[in-house]
Amino acid sequence: MEVKEIELKGHIIDSFILPRVFDIIMDNGGEFEVLQFSIGKHKTDPSYARILVKAGDRETLDLILGELHKIGARVPEIEELKLVEAPKDGAAPRGFYSTTNHPTYVYLSGEWIQVEKIEMDCCIVVDVKNKKAVCKPIRDLQKGELVVVGKSGVRVEPPERPREYSIFEFMRSKVSPEKPTRALIRRIAEEMVRIKRKKKKIAFVCGPAVIHTGASDALAELIRMGFVDVLFAGNALAVHDIELQLFGTSLGMDVKKVIPTEGGHRNHLYAINEVLLAGSIENMIRDGKLKGGIMYECIKRNVPFVLAGSIRDDGPLPEVITDVVEAQRAMRRHLEGVELVVMLATMLHSIAVGNLLPSNVKTVCVDINPATVIKLTDRGTAQALGIVSDVGVFLPMLTEELKKLRA
Amino acid sequence: MEVKEIELKGHIIDSFILPRVFDIIMDNGGEFEVLQFSIGKHKTDPSYARILVKAGDRETLDLILGELHKIGARVPEIEELKLVEAPKDGAAPRGFYSTTNHPTYVYLSGEWIQVEKIEMDCCIVVDVKNKKAVCKPIRDLQKGELVVVGKSGVRVEPPERPREYSIFEFMRSKVSPEKPTRALIRRIAEEMVRIKRKKKKIAFVCGPAVIHTGASDALAELIRMGFVDVLFAGNALAVHDIELQLFGTSLGMDVKKVIPTEGGHRNHLYAINEVLLAGSIENMIRDGKLKGGIMYECIKRNVPFVLAGSIRDDGPLPEVITDVVEAQRAMRRHLEGVELVVMLATMLHSIAVGNLLPSNVKTVCVDINPATVIKLTDRGTAQALGIVSDVGVFLPMLTEELKKLRA
Amino acid sequence: MEVKEIELKGHIIDSFILPRVFDIIMDNGGEFEVLQFSIGKHKTDPSYARILVKAGDRETLDLILGELHKIGARVPEIEELKLVEAPKDGAAPRGFYSTTNHPTYVYLSGEWIQVEKIEMDCCIVVDVKNKKAVCKPIRDLQKGELVVVGKSGVRVEPPERPREYSIFEFMRSKVSPEKPTRALIRRIAEEMVRIKRKKKKIAFVCGPAVIHTGASDALAELIRMGFVDVLFAGNALAVHDIELQLFGTSLGMDVKKVIPTEGGHRNHLYAINEVLLAGSIENMIRDGKLKGGIMYECIKRNVPFVLAGSIRDDGPLPEVITDVVEAQRAMRRHLEGVELVVMLATMLHSIAVGNLLPSNVKTVCVDINPATVIKLTDRGTAQALGIVSDVGVFLPMLTEELKKLRA
Amino acid sequence: MEVKEIELKGHIIDSFILPRVFDIIMDNGGEFEVLQFSIGKHKTDPSYARILVKAGDRETLDLILGELHKIGARVPEIEELKLVEAPKDGAAPRGFYSTTNHPTYVYLSGEWIQVEKIEMDCCIVVDVKNKKAVCKPIRDLQKGELVVVGKSGVRVEPPERPREYSIFEFMRSKVSPEKPTRALIRRIAEEMVRIKRKKKKIAFVCGPAVIHTGASDALAELIRMGFVDVLFAGNALAVHDIELQLFGTSLGMDVKKVIPTEGGHRNHLYAINEVLLAGSIENMIRDGKLKGGIMYECIKRNVPFVLAGSIRDDGPLPEVITDVVEAQRAMRRHLEGVELVVMLATMLHSIAVGNLLPSNVKTVCVDINPATVIKLTDRGTAQALGIVSDVGVFLPMLTEELKKLRA
Repeated sequence: MEVKEIELKGHIIDSFILPRVFDIIMDNGGEFEVLQFSIGKHKTDPSYARILVKAGDRETLDLILGELHKIGARVPEIEELKLVEAPKDGAAPRGFYSTTNHPTYVYLSGEWIQVEKIEMDCCIVVDVKNKKAVCKPIRDLQKGELVVVGKSGVRVEPPERPREYSIFEFMRSKVSPEKPTRALIRRIAEEMVRIKRKKKKIAFVCGPAVIHTGASDALAELIRMGFVDVLFAGNALAVHDIELQLFGTSLGMDVKKVIPTEGGHRNHLYAINEVLLAGSIENMIRDGKLKGGIMYECIKRNVPFVLAGSIRDDGPLPEVITDVVEAQRAMRRHLEGVELVVMLATMLHSIAVGNLLPSNVKTVCVDINPATVIKLTDRGTAQALGIVSDVGVFLPMLTEELKKLRA
Repeated sequence: MEVKEIELKGHIIDSFILPRVFDIIMDNGGEFEVLQFSIGKHKTDPSYARILVKAGDRETLDLILGELHKIGARVPEIEELKLVEAPKDGAAPRGFYSTTNHPTYVYLSGEWIQVEKIEMDCCIVVDVKNKKAVCKPIRDLQKGELVVVGKSGVRVEPPERPREYSIFEFMRSKVSPEKPTRALIRRIAEEMVRIKRKKKKIAFVCGPAVIHTGASDALAELIRMGFVDVLFAGNALAVHDIELQLFGTSLGMDVKKVIPTEGGHRNHLYAINEVLLAGSIENMIRDGKLKGGIMYECIKRNVPFVLAGSIRDDGPLPEVITDVVEAQRAMRRHLEGVELVVMLATMLHSIAVGNLLPSNVKTVCVDINPATVIKLTDRGTAQALGIVSDVGVFLPMLTEELKKLRA
Repeated sequence: MEVKEIELKGHIIDSFILPRVFDIIMDNGGEFEVLQFSIGKHKTDPSYARILVKAGDRETLDLILGELHKIGARVPEIEELKLVEAPKDGAAPRGFYSTTNHPTYVYLSGEWIQVEKIEMDCCIVVDVKNKKAVCKPIRDLQKGELVVVGKSGVRVEPPERPREYSIFEFMRSKVSPEKPTRALIRRIAEEMVRIKRKKKKIAFVCGPAVIHTGASDALAELIRMGFVDVLFAGNALAVHDIELQLFGTSLGMDVKKVIPTEGGHRNHLYAINEVLLAGSIENMIRDGKLKGGIMYECIKRNVPFVLAGSIRDDGPLPEVITDVVEAQRAMRRHLEGVELVVMLATMLHSIAVGNLLPSNVKTVCVDINPATVIKLTDRGTAQALGIVSDVGVFLPMLTEELKKLRA
Repeated sequence: MEVKEIELKGHIIDSFILPRVFDIIMDNGGEFEVLQFSIGKHKTDPSYARILVKAGDRETLDLILGELHKIGARVPEIEELKLVEAPKDGAAPRGFYSTTNHPTYVYLSGEWIQVEKIEMDCCIVVDVKNKKAVCKPIRDLQKGELVVVGKSGVRVEPPERPREYSIFEFMRSKVSPEKPTRALIRRIAEEMVRIKRKKKKIAFVCGPAVIHTGASDALAELIRMGFVDVLFAGNALAVHDIELQLFGTSLGMDVKKVIPTEGGHRNHLYAINEVLLAGSIENMIRDGKLKGGIMYECIKRNVPFVLAGSIRDDGPLPEVITDVVEAQRAMRRHLEGVELVVMLATMLHSIAVGNLLPSNVKTVCVDINPATVIKLTDRGTAQALGIVSDVGVFLPMLTEELKKLRA
């Protein structure tokens, strides 16, 4: 029987950490002995647990300890950090420590140093001289960089459950189309106003359904009102936005009269070509050819945007970053300082953005497809709100609520 | 080779009748020869076709002819109507004519008589003496009634495609969540105003998600405005409507504050019990215990409703018709004169109502689940509009649009 | 500040009881003080907690205590059971205790008596003389019966998390279409064999998609193999089963050749009529007119079935219970002794059956629609397994696996 | 009133061309006069129509004619082809002809030349000297290339409905989860065998759910059996395939034992790193580190594959084409000669591939999500089969059927 002692601190019961500790041990066939436990007496008091984990063999014990580590368990004695050089550019040493999206610390020369730019499924690179640790995707490693291997000397602090009721679910997903949509929209609007008051950033991730379902004006209005600090989207959103401005159609559908002017199908190609002729969306605006819409508002108001390419793109537009690794890097840059991400009707871009978020960012995901909402909130950050709804009505209502709050 | 001559009249090309004739013949391995064809020269002119249908054997020919009959094909010579007595109560003679939902005529004593109360999947009962024909479900047949057998002497008139563009799809379903929802809502509102101006009836079929998603006030308002001529729903809609009035919750969720006052879960049982104690919803209103909501508005404004029972009901309420065959009868009674049916977030009740509709009634189906929308518009009447959206935002927006049109 | 002391026992951490206790208190704005806590040292040891719950007012405290009660919290002192007579037939006294689906006990004359036939959303009727307590739906109450009011003197024992890993989720729903379907099927088959070895019962709840997707033979085979102890379904399943036997079609689709012999659409009506002419399905078998299929196997092998009516039924068949309250009663009767319920491709019947189950029954729910699977596993019993899959391939594979296990 | 004469030839009634002609004219507010019409007398005879199209203004007439052109209408007189030079690299002249995916011809020096590599939403570039016309995406145009502008001198030949019943829907999508899955699988298997006998190519487009749902072995087997001529997928499919081979897990789930060895979550990162260390998948195989699975079989059997990058990729693997425009080009190259495309559980890659297909390629699309299936079959080629099912059971059954057919 292999054994190891671990300890846990904080709101480990109501933040579902202790129950998950027991779950992980039992699901993997391990045993445990609680050596010490003191419970937080009041709702703001932390608890503390010291537990002996047991398993039939070393491999199982390691598996269990690896999982426990991810949710904040640590060994009471201070363990040494193990660093190994990256063997080549774009590859990590075997057994490298793969990050979670929680605040993470490494023990370096007697101090706990916080890992910068934390993001899940990456490596930790340590600059011993300058006492710095930074999170890096495997592909960005350079030969010789010191990479953390194993989990010793690494500490993770999973987020704690808020002390009060919130519309954001804490680390659990309950997706149901049967929620009071309008009331939720009001609450989201309040949250957005709160964040902007704190001078923090809100990111929007949008699929082209925002245009197809007729919510384009509402999003443009949100940008004008200052609620969009950065926009993540793909080629299609920009194309249909410009198509709508130039021809009044979205993928050939007249979104005002609801007539499928099928002739309009080529309109999206003509819209692309106009941008290609002008050289960029910005040039079109400068030439007075594009006078409104989502991209127009972004450019006019200096709201940064990342248009990430995908293999289903027509064109694509010059602004689209066609290399996906480059696109990820651009997304990373713009996510710093973001406190709320609103994901609207796109699984691809929402998952991509979600993968880059630290666990303390709040997310709202709205999609007509419950499977998409489940997937996004499951992989999401610690506080996610999933809404199965229609962006074509959700977004105009959100804009209205924000106007009321502003008034 | 077995052969039979058929003829077709009307807008048989653009109403997709002639292409379907060819489809049916070819899919079933038959052959055809077009004996005569004159095409409508202008968009309002009818066409005419006389076609020789051929098949390798009698059985295949009959199968093909049966299908062609349903879409309006008839034999040029007048065929005799065959009537056989119902052998017992609630059962039809073998080979009985099973109805479509299109206007149908039987040839009786040298005259074409229209079948009353037409509805699909029923029998036709003929009263020879009074020269009347009426559509009846098998279970309602009485021993000795004369039932039409085979298709000779029966004529069907499938609906024709409207001459102008309409938001309602003609006999085809194109379900997509990527439609401009707000613009469609405006068009539906216009259609509703048009129907009410003609003094025709609008029916609503509603599931409990109307309450859960917070659209209860909007529906109550529509009833007050006179846009609901009859309401079809189940026990759950009424229970949660009353729960919301009595306790402010819907299935235990506070729909204003969006707090899951789980304690509220029992609220729906307490709501049921209050009605049971009072004896009926009407009594509760009389006693001043129920002062608003959907059921309140229906009763106050004499809007008839049918609450049809289902096996998942709690209670159920005294107004619920627990026998499903009785409930179908009640639904039939209230559908007379209805020109538009709006189906909101319920597959069970919508299919049940849809089954009873003649093909010339327009239907709008709104559901968050595309599969439900497809199913309903596929089985639907000739002019159906399917919208994949969230009733929690759809219904308030529809009410707003109607108010604007009224103003 | 209102206060009340409660206590909890058992595997309250890993069974998610203690975290939910804290959740409920904090979500509702209450405070707590942990007076005493001893943790189970090993994975089979129970824990114990004594907690002081505090709230700003009596109403909030009561709400919190009501919720805590449902998950097993009890007051340390023994409280007196309150009994009030039912004021009339089919109605309960105000404030009646509404049941959970967990094992429940009432304190009667110094003893804890287990409530019989426990089922959620019902009342508890007490026979003081015979020291018996039984669970009853409100509508079944008779005037004068003694009904439990409030929660004092009532104790609930929520199920505990199994000590080992299981494919059944414990009180949580993780619905994903991305599960290894075949491997899960193997595990379900093993569970079914295990249950039959213990001479316990397995119930199947089936929608008509079982027939439409071509899985009819597989279900018939399961019945022959003895894995179906009771079948819950609706009119449509039986109708299409008989249609398939008589005409080789299911709703007019030739399920072998996959040709939509549209002529076949009336086949389901003719199938209904044959049963109506014979008087019952059993008579058809006796007369040699029905020679195989699901209903045939049930009747031949004395497997009880409940065909519950719904408002979308054609016919319905004579065996269908058209009164939904009667149908619920029949379902209740046949659920006694069932340890596993397999729900296939029907939301209506699955929810109806799920509502009647005590929390210790295991359920497997298979549906192509993730929303249905979520809904069923969310409302489900303590151990539910949701699979987003296609019954048309799931059921044949399950049958194959069971054959392998038998061999 | 503006007028223009058009003509149509072929199976224009049963291929839904003539009805759509009338639809388009009427939906857009036009009028028509049928000048001449001769109908195909037998099912293999072509029909012929000459129609005068009328509209209130030039713009509407042009819109109508543009739509009619796309479905094969042509003007009786021969019109001159208009060619304009591409004004710059990667941009087309205004008013360029945007292609359909149907066989297309241009009238050049008195001859109808077929456009090579036809694909929708592109331009036609004409090499006057060599009398060649080729389809090109806008972005691939070079300054000075002669691009077709307007539709005069261009002729489109939409595909005709097959004369016999087929499981593939002709230009219509009827998506239903209630199809007999096993029987359809048999028919697909037969179609695959037929295509391979003709020495034609079958392409597979696969999402990672193929691995997650446990169908990996089945796909590997299909490759070994020679039924996969080219594989289109993304980074995730390859990563999880290799993860499964190295660690027995797929995204951390043990797909055999169905145990979520959460520790395994990092396995997918370790799998990526192994490939990065080796330098390529091929190197891993050469080094004996990868001994089975989908990628292994592809490489061993020289089955070409395109792994197209997306912004949600971890890694990505060295074989992944990270530039989406490059990836599209690679996909185009490998689609030549393909007669059937099987799309499994991926919307992104399936739409991307679908966009590149000429209309005469058959497609089978299998997905658990009906919305995906609808989207794919709607945009699809002329003969598409959509199946709402679970690849985890679909693919093993398909492999089994193919083995039976081979035996």
